[in-house]
Amino acid sequence: MPELRKDAIVDRWVIIATERSRRPNDFLIEPEPPAVASPFAAGHEARTPPEIFQIGRDPSAAPDTPGWQVRVVPNKYPALSMEGELNYQGLGMFDLMNGVGAHEVVIENPDQNWDMTVATDEEMTNVLRAYRARILALQQDERFRYVLVFRNKGTMAGATIAHPHSQIIALPILPMTVKEHLTAAREYYQRKSRCIFTDILRQELALGDRIVEANEHFIVLCPFAARFPFETQIYPRRQSHDFATLDEDELRALGDTLRRTLRRIKTLLGDPAYNLMLHNSPNLSPQPGCPDYWGTIAQDYQWRLDILPRLTRVAGFEWGTGFYINPVAPEEAARFLRETATA
Amino acid sequence: MPELRKDAIVDRWVIIATERSRRPNDFLIEPEPPAVASPFAAGHEARTPPEIFQIGRDPSAAPDTPGWQVRVVPNKYPALSMEGELNYQGLGMFDLMNGVGAHEVVIENPDQNWDMTVATDEEMTNVLRAYRARILALQQDERFRYVLVFRNKGTMAGATIAHPHSQIIALPILPMTVKEHLTAAREYYQRKSRCIFTDILRQELALGDRIVEANEHFIVLCPFAARFPFETQIYPRRQSHDFATLDEDELRALGDTLRRTLRRIKTLLGDPAYNLMLHNSPNLSPQPGCPDYWGTIAQDYQWRLDILPRLTRVAGFEWGTGFYINPVAPEEAARFLRETATA
Repeated sequence: MPELRKDAIVDRWVIIATERSRRPNDFLIEPEPPAVASPFAAGHEARTPPEIFQIGRDPSAAPDTPGWQVRVVPNKYPALSMEGELNYQGLGMFDLMNGVGAHEVVIENPDQNWDMTVATDEEMTNVLRAYRARILALQQDERFRYVLVFRNKGTMAGATIAHPHSQIIALPILPMTVKEHLTAAREYYQRKSRCIFTDILRQELALGDRIVEANEHFIVLCPFAARFPFETQIYPRRQSHDFATLDEDELRALGDTLRRTLRRIKTLLGDPAYNLMLHNSPNLSPQPGCPDYWGTIAQDYQWRLDILPRLTRVAGFEWGTGFYINPVAPEEAARFLRETATA
Repeated sequence: MPELRKDAIVDRWVIIATERSRRPNDFLIEPEPPAVASPFAAGHEARTPPEIFQIGRDPSAAPDTPGWQVRVVPNKYPALSMEGELNYQGLGMFDLMNGVGAHEVVIENPDQNWDMTVATDEEMTNVLRAYRARILALQQDERFRYVLVFRNKGTMAGATIAHPHSQIIALPILPMTVKEHLTAAREYYQRKSRCIFTDILRQELALGDRIVEANEHFIVLCPFAARFPFETQIYPRRQSHDFATLDEDELRALGDTLRRTLRRIKTLLGDPAYNLMLHNSPNLSPQPGCPDYWGTIAQDYQWRLDILPRLTRVAGFEWGTGFYINPVAPEEAARFLRETATA
């Protein structure tokens, strides 16, 4: 059973993932994705745990057979366990709890050579539909406080399987990073009765120099204090704290915007590895000992997508301080991305 | 002139390092350390900026000539600039300031093939003497709030030059990570009149399962909530908030402990890349607008060394949450390290 452990000094929790436990020898060789057939490809459904969700298969066909367009399965080597109730414990000065949570894989297409930058509208929308469906389902589980959707592309970004996929992790604890954002957004709202993200977007649109693209539904920009070169964010124009509230038109427009943004990055930077994360609002279902204190969240918070191309390495300075050294000004990054052809 | 920028939402600052500005094409190829002669080797003193500090050269010899054992020079491509006064500004909703700071390189030995795991006592002590001397000097500059010493070993850890070296960065802002630790330590002290680090060390020594080594002066352990496999910390036994207060005996004992710890890691894990960081107390000199509010710091804080072997990749989950997935329990890591021969 994995454990969640809280640092004795700061509010930082860690998963001790006994289910993916490794021994020292495992680290001697950097694992590269094997050139064998993808375990996620159509026809290999038996190589994953039974599917949780799929889009595209004929309703009369059996589960875990070909015919799907997107398929969601439990991670075969999950960082967290779906079984059991929450169990907080102390160990002298330390706090820990059992590692209850969900860890799912969104197989984005049956074809292992599928590429998001040249996908069809329907393929893109299907991936986002799968995100929405799984977030909605995991929001119903009262053990979970937060659902994170993320996509690691390329070995440098931590991907161990090359077949295009995203991952979803549901956590029983609100992560520090999320809490810091939520707290700051709420405090701003209490002071000004305005959403901080809306104010930032309005200013960025007026200034213009960090904007990559602004279309009917979405705004793509490089943030003012970008930690990494070509760090890019996609915000909805509409005030919206929860990705799961997106309608079909918005999902399709987001798929189009995301594809175009990734195409800019690929054209400009030569297909770099990247991490993509959905920063969404937390689960609002009540939990023992965790009152719902995000009363104004629908007014004060905004979801977004973050894209972090992995072009530099995080080193001692960043680990020692939480400070980052970014060698590309975000205005320069935005200008390069904006001027890159997307056709 | 580089800029420091504060994220509009959380208390996170970033250096926009215009001095090391790069263009998109620079990222197309992963730079590897060239096989040419090291720019840091003895006889190549003219390839670095003029030295700030050295140990070992005959007093009658000219600066920037061979004969040194350890040599400290300004970073040729500094992330921060030593020139100028602090200048806080606003840009609409954003906060920024000019990037004043120090960025130095500690060349640890004239020999580019020098290896810390088999160094002599005197070589190790000289490196630590250079750390101490530069910390003491940079603590006198009232523009700086924090001095970080770190060592990136190996390409995976962000090192771009293979010649053994450390880096020192002095910052005009107290980094969030440091502030969080200082605040937590002070609050604990106010509540209990005891140092949180001392309490942790006492408990760890009693439990024993995360201890790698405990000698007369230092304790080596894998922390309870380690973020990374084989993450290791070296604490002084003596309550001491500032590394610069170490005396000669303690420096020598630390050199011995550090060398042995790195030897364990190399023997066990096959010479992995790692980041080493000195978590020291902040500069206590007064600064306009920054009152010294660390009144009990000499009682409530403890410096330490952190060693983070780079065995796993930080990916979307970590970036999205500040949570980490660690596949090796620290008790297992400590046991493996403890049982590794150091002779």
